[in-house]
Amino acid sequence: MIHQDTIVALATPSGAGAIAVIRLSGQEAIAIAEKKFKSISGKLLSKQATHTIHLGHIVDNNRTIDQVLVSVFKNPNSYTGEHVVEISCHGSNYIQQEIIQLFLRQGCRMATAGEFTLRAFLNGKLDLSQAEAVADLISSDNEASHQIAMQQMRGGFSSEIAKLREELLNFASLIELELDFAEEDVEFADRSQFKALVEKITFVLKRLIDSFAVGNVIKNGIPVAIVGEPNVGKSTLLNALLNEERAIVSDIAGTTRDTIEDELVIRGIGFRFIDTAGIRETKDVVESIGIKKTFEKMEQAQVVVLLFSAEEFKTESKRLKIEIEKIKNKFLLKPLLIIANKIDTLNTEESEQLKLQFENVHLLSAKSGLGVEELKEKLIGFVNTGALRNNETIVTNTRHYDSLLKAFEEIQKVKYGLESGLSGDLMAIDIRQALYYFGEITGEITNDDLLGNIFANFCIGK
Amino acid sequence: MIHQDTIVALATPSGAGAIAVIRLSGQEAIAIAEKKFKSISGKLLSKQATHTIHLGHIVDNNRTIDQVLVSVFKNPNSYTGEHVVEISCHGSNYIQQEIIQLFLRQGCRMATAGEFTLRAFLNGKLDLSQAEAVADLISSDNEASHQIAMQQMRGGFSSEIAKLREELLNFASLIELELDFAEEDVEFADRSQFKALVEKITFVLKRLIDSFAVGNVIKNGIPVAIVGEPNVGKSTLLNALLNEERAIVSDIAGTTRDTIEDELVIRGIGFRFIDTAGIRETKDVVESIGIKKTFEKMEQAQVVVLLFSAEEFKTESKRLKIEIEKIKNKFLLKPLLIIANKIDTLNTEESEQLKLQFENVHLLSAKSGLGVEELKEKLIGFVNTGALRNNETIVTNTRHYDSLLKAFEEIQKVKYGLESGLSGDLMAIDIRQALYYFGEITGEITNDDLLGNIFANFCIGK
Repeated sequence: MIHQDTIVALATPSGAGAIAVIRLSGQEAIAIAEKKFKSISGKLLSKQATHTIHLGHIVDNNRTIDQVLVSVFKNPNSYTGEHVVEISCHGSNYIQQEIIQLFLRQGCRMATAGEFTLRAFLNGKLDLSQAEAVADLISSDNEASHQIAMQQMRGGFSSEIAKLREELLNFASLIELELDFAEEDVEFADRSQFKALVEKITFVLKRLIDSFAVGNVIKNGIPVAIVGEPNVGKSTLLNALLNEERAIVSDIAGTTRDTIEDELVIRGIGFRFIDTAGIRETKDVVESIGIKKTFEKMEQAQVVVLLFSAEEFKTESKRLKIEIEKIKNKFLLKPLLIIANKIDTLNTEESEQLKLQFENVHLLSAKSGLGVEELKEKLIGFVNTGALRNNETIVTNTRHYDSLLKAFEEIQKVKYGLESGLSGDLMAIDIRQALYYFGEITGEITNDDLLGNIFANFCIGK
Repeated sequence: MIHQDTIVALATPSGAGAIAVIRLSGQEAIAIAEKKFKSISGKLLSKQATHTIHLGHIVDNNRTIDQVLVSVFKNPNSYTGEHVVEISCHGSNYIQQEIIQLFLRQGCRMATAGEFTLRAFLNGKLDLSQAEAVADLISSDNEASHQIAMQQMRGGFSSEIAKLREELLNFASLIELELDFAEEDVEFADRSQFKALVEKITFVLKRLIDSFAVGNVIKNGIPVAIVGEPNVGKSTLLNALLNEERAIVSDIAGTTRDTIEDELVIRGIGFRFIDTAGIRETKDVVESIGIKKTFEKMEQAQVVVLLFSAEEFKTESKRLKIEIEKIKNKFLLKPLLIIANKIDTLNTEESEQLKLQFENVHLLSAKSGLGVEELKEKLIGFVNTGALRNNETIVTNTRHYDSLLKAFEEIQKVKYGLESGLSGDLMAIDIRQALYYFGEITGEITNDDLLGNIFANFCIGK
């Protein structure tokens, strides 16, 4: 299907770089680009072969906007399956905007989020789960999430579903055929073969559904809240973990007001560290907003790292114990890592005392880096990375997870129907329903709302 | 000249976008890319024509990193004049880094800042001032700076210099020839023609030198500091000017601690607004650092906007007058715009009173937007945009400005020499010196230090 309207968008990240790429797609893409492009050698874009590049200027009424390289892709040999033109211009925001505005005036329409990939799907260049993998691939920021997205984009996941769907469809047809001959009591569908298929589907679905837990962690990273009283060194720890000066550090208690988030990849798994305002009683309005945020962030975290100062341990060990118990009780369900920072201020005897009084405490000096690597090891211990290592298919997409759950439910009904000798016409309904949910994943079953939801999560230009 | 080593860098802005472009340049660029690129149709990159695009995968030891489009440009028909390969991959940071790392392992070297353009210059694809214009073009963020950079990149400025240099060189040769015949007292160089040329050069140089003042303003934007006591609405004014919620606004005096900068383009001219911490006596250490910064920012500003609250005028008009006089005296040399904000809190009579007591005060309500457009008009009034409107050549580059000043000085010596009948051998030295400075601009005269300085200001990947 060739769309009538031609869309335009910036395909590279916004901001200044050496170059930027502006993408046009649609019936008129080449014709529109040709109107405003003056080739150095006088060539006409429409006369050029697909997959060729041409040097020239983007010119609007004798005003030269930029010297550019224009790439031509002809329908159907392009990303979208339509005519596509990519303009590689100098990477100034101003130039990008001027060129896009120029093409909007020539009758292009601004692309909506993910519209290029939507067109690729509608034109049969990708199935739906592959299209979704494009967005995952772009947002992948570590080896694990990249590996999963790449596998999904190359069809690993949806081809498995599509194969099961086909086998199931075959049985559905046979059972529905039986209904036409209901009077004659024939059985086209071999019930024992069918049962074996249902078992197989159940097994595969269960594995895919179970993989979602680890998939979700890999895709989104594990949120880790770093909490503690003011001035125990939370921001210094964050900087030590990230090996950079991300947060403003000062000796003044209460320096961090906003919560700061940053990500660290440990052996392919992303951890999102959330540095929070110190927890203390305060009358400062801005600071107390920060402390309220801290508690909200702790709620969202999957791991809480509770920091206290080993220095304070010397003078206030009792109060410390009470404070730690308070926080422990508040987050009973979350893995909690208790860390004594500024361990360099203690002598050997004091360190031993500390370890005796606080069970499982992790000793660390954020300033000198002592104990930071060991902390990373402890964090990775929270993640089950077994599935990842074995290169299994992992589901990371909530939509797929939902469809898989629903398909699983329907397949259980089919299984129960088979065992209890349910009539063919009722069983056919359950099978059709399971097929429906399978089809939702690969995009054989779709509707505008669904597509709208999926592609709204894309960036514009993809 | 073909460089032996092949360089690689990301050419698009860092960060996640739909696509990213990685660029390789050098003798081995195509050969190296070929080793790790698996074309969908099995083509070999080295066998492909220049300016063609190829779909395939970047593969490292059976591990697929990404599906990509590869563009091939063959020496000398490329940006650098060398073999160039551009890889258009999915725009994830992770993928970008993996691909770059892969090519580094294959023997590429990370490009230094501006190295692609440096090679273009060394290979004669651009002269030096055109190369510098590339960086200006990328950083141009408004119509005026874009127009100047584009003009310079297309050779407008350096071709004028090169033409004058050639004419001058011609006379230099003739005068030096006279020296060979010194005994015979011949005059090959027509002195009146030469005088006319020197006059012409003086005129052109003077115009170019004078254009630097406006050029500098256009290139860098005009820094405008917004100052005033806490809670008079400085951040609200900034937001009103920028039409967005850039700064955190609250009713709590002292909310702004860091100075916030943002740019607004008014009729093609960039203004950099600097929102500052409110000036007041404080014991808060963090806030007092902010106030210290405010005074530093005011020093750098070319225009100071002093804000006070019209509401306070009703109760504290005397104190206000003293405060304003203080700041006025501190910045006698800077254009100062005094603004009464929150004018909506005054009735007509009070407004009249205000205007009487404070000369040239600008009435405004940042909250409702009243008087904001008029403020923009007043700001643009500070800039002389005459040269820009007349489409004259404008010098924006400090290096060019310095060379032009030095060339001007030497030409004045030549002029004086002509008038006072200086001997040809001494005059020849001054002419050669002027030629040297002309050559510095276009890059005919150059050295490694100079090139190093120029290209260090480029981004990596250009």
